[in-house]
Amino acid sequence: MSDEREAVIHAARAARIAAADLAICTRAQKDAALNAMADALVTHSGIIIEANSRDISSAVAAGTDPAIIDRLTLNAERILAVADALRTVADLPDPVGEVVRGYTLPNGLEVRQLRVPMGVIAMIYEARPNVTVDAAGLSLKSGNCVLLRGSSSAHNTNSELVAVMRNALSETDVPVDAIQLAPGTTHEAAKHLMTARGLVDVVIPRGGAGLIETVVTQSTVPVIETGVGNCHVYVDEAADLNMAVDIVINSKTQRTSVCNTAETVLVHRNIADEFLPMLMHAFKDAGVTVHGDSAMAAAAAQVGTQFAPVTDEDWAAEYYSLDMAAGVVDSLESAIAHIRRWSSGHTEAIVSNSQPAIRRFTSGLDSAAIMVNASTRFTDGGEFGFGAEIGISTQKLHARGPMGLPELTTTTYIVTGNGHTRH
Amino acid sequence: MSDEREAVIHAARAARIAAADLAICTRAQKDAALNAMADALVTHSGIIIEANSRDISSAVAAGTDPAIIDRLTLNAERILAVADALRTVADLPDPVGEVVRGYTLPNGLEVRQLRVPMGVIAMIYEARPNVTVDAAGLSLKSGNCVLLRGSSSAHNTNSELVAVMRNALSETDVPVDAIQLAPGTTHEAAKHLMTARGLVDVVIPRGGAGLIETVVTQSTVPVIETGVGNCHVYVDEAADLNMAVDIVINSKTQRTSVCNTAETVLVHRNIADEFLPMLMHAFKDAGVTVHGDSAMAAAAAQVGTQFAPVTDEDWAAEYYSLDMAAGVVDSLESAIAHIRRWSSGHTEAIVSNSQPAIRRFTSGLDSAAIMVNASTRFTDGGEFGFGAEIGISTQKLHARGPMGLPELTTTTYIVTGNGHTRH
Repeated sequence: MSDEREAVIHAARAARIAAADLAICTRAQKDAALNAMADALVTHSGIIIEANSRDISSAVAAGTDPAIIDRLTLNAERILAVADALRTVADLPDPVGEVVRGYTLPNGLEVRQLRVPMGVIAMIYEARPNVTVDAAGLSLKSGNCVLLRGSSSAHNTNSELVAVMRNALSETDVPVDAIQLAPGTTHEAAKHLMTARGLVDVVIPRGGAGLIETVVTQSTVPVIETGVGNCHVYVDEAADLNMAVDIVINSKTQRTSVCNTAETVLVHRNIADEFLPMLMHAFKDAGVTVHGDSAMAAAAAQVGTQFAPVTDEDWAAEYYSLDMAAGVVDSLESAIAHIRRWSSGHTEAIVSNSQPAIRRFTSGLDSAAIMVNASTRFTDGGEFGFGAEIGISTQKLHARGPMGLPELTTTTYIVTGNGHTRH
Repeated sequence: MSDEREAVIHAARAARIAAADLAICTRAQKDAALNAMADALVTHSGIIIEANSRDISSAVAAGTDPAIIDRLTLNAERILAVADALRTVADLPDPVGEVVRGYTLPNGLEVRQLRVPMGVIAMIYEARPNVTVDAAGLSLKSGNCVLLRGSSSAHNTNSELVAVMRNALSETDVPVDAIQLAPGTTHEAAKHLMTARGLVDVVIPRGGAGLIETVVTQSTVPVIETGVGNCHVYVDEAADLNMAVDIVINSKTQRTSVCNTAETVLVHRNIADEFLPMLMHAFKDAGVTVHGDSAMAAAAAQVGTQFAPVTDEDWAAEYYSLDMAAGVVDSLESAIAHIRRWSSGHTEAIVSNSQPAIRRFTSGLDSAAIMVNASTRFTDGGEFGFGAEIGISTQKLHARGPMGLPELTTTTYIVTGNGHTRH
């Protein structure tokens, strides 16, 4: 066994042992620990910022993109924000212990299905150091020990954040090993984490499509895939056209860099003549570049909207920018067929006042969320009222759509009898 | 792409297309199809038995164990039983469409989380041809298309069963490709199935530990692990000793070849003097061989119970036979530590009248089910009242413990507004 692998296994074992103690901590004990972590981060913001500045210097020296450097940066204000996020998590209900299902069988056996922690979560993520604190807080609240594997570019920052949080835990009833930095910064080290079956219960990747693909194909531990989004808005022939403009523009432009942003708009042919000029004006005002078919081309040319002919790459694209693929469809069925072919299964929206069209659209697709007369941007743990979000699952197993604290738990059956044996 | 891989991908694509149609079939349409399949199996039992006899001849010629040949055998009576099982599935409630969660947000958005089919399930299983029919029925009822990959020793039987069921479907509203035999009988063909990401939504292996390990490590499609069991019974110092004997004997001997059979008994030292002789008499009467520690050795010798010294292999063993590992523990905490170390996380039982001991036992373990004063044999979909069982999950993601029809579904969020955009 390599030294690196040994270090990862050693950390996972420590997490496993701590998990047994953390699982039986009360909500009061966990909330006290979360608040102590928040206080410690604020108190020690000086050394955290110092560690962060070392990461930033390295990134600047390496010629890193300024946008990425901005995401990497922690300052006093951002540290206050992550500390506040921990206090918010403390205020959320504890999912552990909830009775999901309970009944008494004809033979008198009492069956109770209870939420319990998963045990040990490995979080593999990119860039932003606030994920280090968020993931630690959400894992702890749900009774799980966490192994945090951030990107090597944030290693100094993440090390300091974890050191400060662990130090805070040492004064509480929660075991210090509830929060650990996963040892090593190499791809091999991450692989050791993803293959630590029996020690790690679930791996959650947070980052770009490349990271997620790597984890999904290399992990032998179960994975929850998060947040790859190619979302669609379909404007039906029975749409309120002004509403449709608002929803398309909001879905595309309210924040372009996130997974619930719409990347494609499909318009029913019967309303195209009236709707496309309205849409093209709005696109022009919002600075959107349309990647469209011939009908879109004509409308864009009349208005002077930025335009490029659409390709299959566009239908598949997650632009994360002010670009949008656009096409006219002959029918609702064509829209459904298009979305089934190209969607990543995140969120699709229909704008329509027709109940039959809405019913067909919502039952005909295979995505985590369907919006009816609402922006795709609402697929979000915060918007759904979960109070916190681990990510948005686009897989079908375990959790689908925005994940809150309950999605970080599993269940166990407690069955009580008085000497019951089976015949 | 190899021909075999092409055939698997082709079948998976056909399943994917059929899945869109099956997902919107009503319960009445699905139940009619299940009953038509049941009728067809009975009507065509002659050709099914003929196909089965070819598999049996090959197995006999290969010198296969008679117990395995028995499991492979279909006769008229067994075909009636699998047909009845399909009718029972038709009578179960449809999980699809159930509103799992629903609320209205402060901004007026209506959020509904609905159960929907997974889509395409690949079932990889060993030996018994009844699984072919069971899995087809449960998948269809839950709105999923299934790719059935049985063992090559049952290939003629499974081919005929699937042909009969598909032929029955052709007369119904359910698409024929809802049920397909996965092409190929090689390990490579199974691997193609497990790596058909985007076409297959979930792989469920049913069989021995070797099969499950292979699927878990080779699959890039999400897997639900089922049914590996090393279950424990702990007899506490506050146990009713007669009840404890009944529960240990029932847990071990009521049926030895299944995953919810107990393989280890742990006895609190404070009651060992009184309890071990009772237990050894019962073991002797039931023909159980004890693999025990020194205290067990002494008690076994006095009574004349079959005995062997216990080893670490015994603590880890799933005997699936009339053998049982046995030890005396100094405390409840020692019992918990032993179980945490050796258990497969399936089912553990405590026999005790002490509420604090029960509370500590149920919160201190990490298994799918905990029995309090009841036999481990009750961890079962049928016993839990699910009406049908896909298997018993020993993983923590998605489903844990006995899986019924709802565990074959995922959910989707339908969010309805009237022009809502995000600020």
